[in-house]
Amino acid sequence: MVTAAAPRRRVSLLGATGSVGRATVDLIERHADLFDVEAVVGGGDADALAGIAVRLGARVAVVADAAKGGALARALEGSGVEAAAGPSAVIDAASRPVDWTMAAISGAAGLSPTIAAVRRGGVIALANKECLVCAGVAFMREVARAGATLLPVDSEHNALLQALGGQGLDAVETMTLTASGGPFRSWSAERIAAARPEDALKHPTWSMGAKITIDSATLMNKGLELIEAHHLFAIGQNRFDVVVHPQSVIHGLVTFRDGAVTAGLASPDMRVPIAHTLGFPKRISTPAARLDLARIGALTFEAPDLQRFPALRLAREALAAGDGAATVLNAANEVAVALFLSRRIGFGDIPAIVAETLDRAEAIGLSRAPATVEDALALDSEARAIASERLPEAEFRAH
Amino acid sequence: MVTAAAPRRRVSLLGATGSVGRATVDLIERHADLFDVEAVVGGGDADALAGIAVRLGARVAVVADAAKGGALARALEGSGVEAAAGPSAVIDAASRPVDWTMAAISGAAGLSPTIAAVRRGGVIALANKECLVCAGVAFMREVARAGATLLPVDSEHNALLQALGGQGLDAVETMTLTASGGPFRSWSAERIAAARPEDALKHPTWSMGAKITIDSATLMNKGLELIEAHHLFAIGQNRFDVVVHPQSVIHGLVTFRDGAVTAGLASPDMRVPIAHTLGFPKRISTPAARLDLARIGALTFEAPDLQRFPALRLAREALAAGDGAATVLNAANEVAVALFLSRRIGFGDIPAIVAETLDRAEAIGLSRAPATVEDALALDSEARAIASERLPEAEFRAH
Repeated sequence: MVTAAAPRRRVSLLGATGSVGRATVDLIERHADLFDVEAVVGGGDADALAGIAVRLGARVAVVADAAKGGALARALEGSGVEAAAGPSAVIDAASRPVDWTMAAISGAAGLSPTIAAVRRGGVIALANKECLVCAGVAFMREVARAGATLLPVDSEHNALLQALGGQGLDAVETMTLTASGGPFRSWSAERIAAARPEDALKHPTWSMGAKITIDSATLMNKGLELIEAHHLFAIGQNRFDVVVHPQSVIHGLVTFRDGAVTAGLASPDMRVPIAHTLGFPKRISTPAARLDLARIGALTFEAPDLQRFPALRLAREALAAGDGAATVLNAANEVAVALFLSRRIGFGDIPAIVAETLDRAEAIGLSRAPATVEDALALDSEARAIASERLPEAEFRAH
Repeated sequence: MVTAAAPRRRVSLLGATGSVGRATVDLIERHADLFDVEAVVGGGDADALAGIAVRLGARVAVVADAAKGGALARALEGSGVEAAAGPSAVIDAASRPVDWTMAAISGAAGLSPTIAAVRRGGVIALANKECLVCAGVAFMREVARAGATLLPVDSEHNALLQALGGQGLDAVETMTLTASGGPFRSWSAERIAAARPEDALKHPTWSMGAKITIDSATLMNKGLELIEAHHLFAIGQNRFDVVVHPQSVIHGLVTFRDGAVTAGLASPDMRVPIAHTLGFPKRISTPAARLDLARIGALTFEAPDLQRFPALRLAREALAAGDGAATVLNAANEVAVALFLSRRIGFGDIPAIVAETLDRAEAIGLSRAPATVEDALALDSEARAIASERLPEAEFRAH
């Protein structure tokens, strides 16, 4: 328990105006006696960022979009909060000394600020996926070099961390990620191939952005999480399993060498894993709804169908092929999902584009493991170009 | 992971010939390079105990029944294993210096040997229930005084320990024990009241002895486990819940202050929790069947019905009333279950006898908290006498 007498923790929020950022702001406001806020960083919503900065008493607020610098400065006038704007100001903010950083800038844009925070050290609450799926080996090398403490915020990985309970990875036999199964869990292969964006955007459990909702429908989301998990928990890529669990109550399970299993569960409220990282290794309270298993009634489980959901198979193959393939997989998937959302390809074309991009990248020798984050970003660009090249044929087949 | 280079652990087995003892023997044989066996203690089966002693290379074998001393000595002739018999030899064996003791002598007979082992110190793997349900406060005082490490073997409590994952109890909001619900889970109150021993002995999940199987049918088993849990995990008696979970896959859940929940799961194989205590804090391998949630398909949960299963309500009330009431509850329940198994009372009379015994004990001032284990045993005897006195009326009502 963090008591009033506990030393205050200095924190920065990278990605303060997004959904993870706002949930973090809520927790910090509820525990104002425990935290001092150094920097809050947002993308382009100057007014929202200024509001957060003032409420939290941050020292500095930085908007990534340089064109919004003036608006931020005006919104913060007289508040005592320093304002800055532009990519290098973001890096400067991320480099300020703190005990804890929320790394929640999404996409490739989150890579450099997160690495700046890692190099500063302390606890990094990681909500950005790209650090691990696009540049996992290079990123984990930075974490090890800096001696930073990396705590995943994603429900599944946070659940695995909690289920591990501080035990060494040599105690672990397997780790299992659960998948909701998405909106097409019980659909036939033919119906899935013909699915429209509006079908896929009906996610059964979580309310999320469009990209991740499509990834949840293809199960690519779980494939990307497998790749993240294998960087976070170095037990070997063959020791990870996925089980479909439509209620999304159990998020992850650890099977130990003696056959005992511990599982991490929570209501679908991001404040639960965020609070775990904020208080770590202690616990801070949250108002999140408590799990009531008797009210939920039943938790069901089924094996994922790799025939109907080839994206998960592709992710496993990329994991086996090595870090470069994971970078290519992620890049090709982003291109394909964007094409699907703009109705230029069909749902079934998403895994097809990913598979072809992986094949072509391997054929031209691109699937080398990126040694640095810069190498990973270069490979990411090349893979996006390859995936986009395939477009005319895809459009031909599209619905 | 315990490697070949790990120091060998010296162990003793109290209750080596019972089901927990035999499961422990199996694990020690599988990890012969990790353990040296000091003493094996059994009740009366001299041949079985001698066989175990020779297989494990124990230094000494002790049979509690003094009349079986000759048979044990003959069975061990020429083996190099020292033989002894009788209660004081059991205490001597339990007092020998070891790193780890399995305390699996069942019933009140297990109290003194377990306390002797606790006073020696080291790790105590506790499978005896009476130490906590009959004499909890006094027993835990002995554990604290000796600085022993107490690890519960019972599936539910072991699951809670694993789910806690070494975190302080101040991080915990609630702990939940699961109950199979027993064979009468879906029966009406009238049908339950008229149940016969053969109905109750059909336990849906575990194969156990008759007493514990009846306790599982009344849900008194879960009530006694609540009492044990509140001694093992001092979070306050109001912070424990019970949820009925017929598949018995999840054994216990810990809800933390932030709303995160970790759960302990395992296949129904006692080697899993025993191995946890044998290797603790490391892990040793077992051949126990691994959990396959996709194959299991569904885990269901419901609130316990305290109307149809009043034993659980009585146990909660005894817990609230204090340690003396728990001793009385346990003693009265043992008497009542024995009467039911011998067809002298009906199933519905079991909680009735427990309730009346609790009332009478309180009325005559017996429900004081026992300060010592001896006090607890004296109270246990008095409560048994009170419960037995009620017999004629119970027989009158019996079926």
